[in-house]
Amino acid sequence: MNWEQIYSHAKEWVNDAGAKIRLSFDKTLNIQTKSNANDLVTNMDKEIEQFFINKIREVYPNHKIMGEEGFGDTLDSLDGIVWLIDPIDGTMNFIHQQRNFAISLGVYENGVGKIGLIYDVVHDELYHASRGNGAYLNDKPLVPLKETPMKESIIALNATWVMENHRIDHNLMIPLVRDARGTRSYGSAALEMVFVAAGRVDAYLSMRLSPWDVAAGAVIIEELGGIVTNLRGKYLNFLSQDSLFAAKPGLHQSILKDYLKEGKW
Amino acid sequence: MNWEQIYSHAKEWVNDAGAKIRLSFDKTLNIQTKSNANDLVTNMDKEIEQFFINKIREVYPNHKIMGEEGFGDTLDSLDGIVWLIDPIDGTMNFIHQQRNFAISLGVYENGVGKIGLIYDVVHDELYHASRGNGAYLNDKPLVPLKETPMKESIIALNATWVMENHRIDHNLMIPLVRDARGTRSYGSAALEMVFVAAGRVDAYLSMRLSPWDVAAGAVIIEELGGIVTNLRGKYLNFLSQDSLFAAKPGLHQSILKDYLKEGKW
Repeated sequence: MNWEQIYSHAKEWVNDAGAKIRLSFDKTLNIQTKSNANDLVTNMDKEIEQFFINKIREVYPNHKIMGEEGFGDTLDSLDGIVWLIDPIDGTMNFIHQQRNFAISLGVYENGVGKIGLIYDVVHDELYHASRGNGAYLNDKPLVPLKETPMKESIIALNATWVMENHRIDHNLMIPLVRDARGTRSYGSAALEMVFVAAGRVDAYLSMRLSPWDVAAGAVIIEELGGIVTNLRGKYLNFLSQDSLFAAKPGLHQSILKDYLKEGKW
Repeated sequence: MNWEQIYSHAKEWVNDAGAKIRLSFDKTLNIQTKSNANDLVTNMDKEIEQFFINKIREVYPNHKIMGEEGFGDTLDSLDGIVWLIDPIDGTMNFIHQQRNFAISLGVYENGVGKIGLIYDVVHDELYHASRGNGAYLNDKPLVPLKETPMKESIIALNATWVMENHRIDHNLMIPLVRDARGTRSYGSAALEMVFVAAGRVDAYLSMRLSPWDVAAGAVIIEELGGIVTNLRGKYLNFLSQDSLFAAKPGLHQSILKDYLKEGKW
């Protein structure tokens, strides 16, 4: 398998998709709601996913594809080479803000992350990594993640998870927020993962994400020595929805032990 | 009073200060803690405030100055012309992220906001307004704010305020988060205020801010028809710390009535 060629194609297609999205800001956006009123989708989400699928099918007809908008394959295993695509991660930001969203594209081989690309379209910042070859922000290498003590940490975490909710006992989360230096919430899992990768936040926790939300970010964070699991400390399977807990080394272990009770809940 | 000249000077000085900050990223940052470990200050906070004070004193010796770092005047009224300066709003972001902070500079006359400038240094985005003359992002006019229903609103709000805390009954805040489309938290009051001005979020609530954190943002938001008060719906006095509640027209009234109980707490 020529991974360099796949990496190069992925970068080219992500850049082309970003250009399409930037052009769309001049046109009228056609917004639909999905399963519930707050789960938004636009014509751009669909158009960009279709763009990737056409490109991949043309050049790599044997690869499989999982995409948020459902134009890809229905998979029950990650055997072979699988592309995991979120054409616009942070659709609510895309609609409200025309910024703070990203294209997320991960390529896995037999369940192992090989390539991850996350493109912050508006700021023209492409975060990318291929396993074993380092992670980059555009052409600049990202530095390996260092341990940070809890009391100096910024945690990306939505306010919803410190209120009573169906996903986690909020009494587990509250001490975490109290002990951290601060919390932030940006509304795009892909961006929040690259903020961990770039050291801008020290950990990111979310209760329910899909494989295409996290596949690319996991490759980039792990390439820098960070740790990506679910909130119980188990590795993600990239086939079903799960919680997410990405953090710097050291901090991941101490949060899992001291706050998330090693997943014993 | 030549307000056009003051506006022009303010823009020039903010741009110069931004250039100094960008240059500082190559040097080592000298970080100190203020009253508590999470209240950070850097040599740049101090240097930039001193830069503004020197410029203002030189050109407008009769104007008064309130600045976060305390190099300005100690004021017990806003009589005359007063500059309210936060040299780096979002110091924690400045230190951790080298982005998502801003210079905030408001100019008031007898307590009335006349000029507001908020400069997102890293993204080179200057949000600015002078009363009665419109608000701008760089050279592009910002559009007047439209009413948005609660269920389609994004609210900027830190997770801390939906947990038990000393400032507000968190049971007032929880329904607000449940009913909104989403919440965000960016860690810079000045930026969160211009995100309201630019329509990227629909409301921003914070429990304790200082006059220099909010003086510039209030001018910009009000110029676009938005409403800026404290969480009890009272106008800010810009002399003491207070809570903050900035929102789109319509949404401000409905949140104040339906969630903040008209300040009766």
